[in-house]
Amino acid sequence: MPKRVDHDQRRVQIAEALQRLTTRAGLEGVSLRQVAAEAGMSMGSVQHYFKTKDEMLLFALEHRHKLRTERITAKVLAEGPPTPRSILRACLVEILPRDPESEADFLIGVAYFIRAVADPAMAKVFGEGTPELLQFFAGQIRQAQAAGDVPASADPAAEAAILWALADSQGSEILMGHRTPADAVSTVDYYLDRLFGA
Amino acid sequence: MPKRVDHDQRRVQIAEALQRLTTRAGLEGVSLRQVAAEAGMSMGSVQHYFKTKDEMLLFALEHRHKLRTERITAKVLAEGPPTPRSILRACLVEILPRDPESEADFLIGVAYFIRAVADPAMAKVFGEGTPELLQFFAGQIRQAQAAGDVPASADPAAEAAILWALADSQGSEILMGHRTPADAVSTVDYYLDRLFGA
Repeated sequence: MPKRVDHDQRRVQIAEALQRLTTRAGLEGVSLRQVAAEAGMSMGSVQHYFKTKDEMLLFALEHRHKLRTERITAKVLAEGPPTPRSILRACLVEILPRDPESEADFLIGVAYFIRAVADPAMAKVFGEGTPELLQFFAGQIRQAQAAGDVPASADPAAEAAILWALADSQGSEILMGHRTPADAVSTVDYYLDRLFGA
Repeated sequence: MPKRVDHDQRRVQIAEALQRLTTRAGLEGVSLRQVAAEAGMSMGSVQHYFKTKDEMLLFALEHRHKLRTERITAKVLAEGPPTPRSILRACLVEILPRDPESEADFLIGVAYFIRAVADPAMAKVFGEGTPELLQFFAGQIRQAQAAGDVPASADPAAEAAILWALADSQGSEILMGHRTPADAVSTVDYYLDRLFGA
């Protein structure tokens, strides 16, 4: 058992080194060698845990998702009893790059997107996350409908797609410096007001 | 005058060669040399017109935007008297990658996005198009409000951001194979129904 924990810690250590490099130096230029140096490990050790850069990126993505889910859960619970609206808002705000932490998360997603554009196999792996998130959003909307907080006429699947688009597209524009985080959050609130309105 | 036309045609010829290559072979791997071969020109001729790959991409982007505007205008006018709703719908549907033509357009945008993520100077150039489009969308929404077709309570700037997000984010997912063009168009129609509803 102690050995297993150590392996997990090593993978996290490598993922975080990769993350620091991608955030600083762009996404495509990062080599396994640089990651090893940044993590303070040998190339051999890094390759023991990850055979390819893509394997490493995938682990890093999952690691960031796990941390993000923990952050969102803590935030939602701190605000009082969670509601579908407070959960959806926390998810969308947390996806938007607003600080170094969430910017790093978003950049990992962009790194995958860039690889997936040219590589259908990567697109398949990368894509498994979004339908899951859309189903989660749609489930929250259905709960709100059951409680009478969202009109029955709303289509949960379409609403989930719209909410995801607001985080995804506005996130890209924040990254480009074309939209402020505050503007993006206010568009999210505007849309939630409308969805949860009469 | 004939000489000038010839120069423009040469630029278009190069841009279209670049476009064919990016669509076939991914975005980052295309070299000036390959573009010259694809265009049936010498390296020297290509470099006479474009000093760098970025200059060439920028021209290609503008060229595609011009063609796309012509396509949208023709489509809207063919449908009968244009309304803000028919104009907005045509723009959104045309941005979504649904056929080789619109997919090529979207990929040129992605090529820019990828470069802009790592290069703030490119982000600036690339970004000039979006605010212009958002203002055009907001203007259409204000016209619909003046005609009583969109509720006065709608915020034109926020609505424009939502509409753009629907095309931008859903377009990326179509490219990844995670969403069908038909699903994306139906989400656009769902949203326009709501915006133009009571």
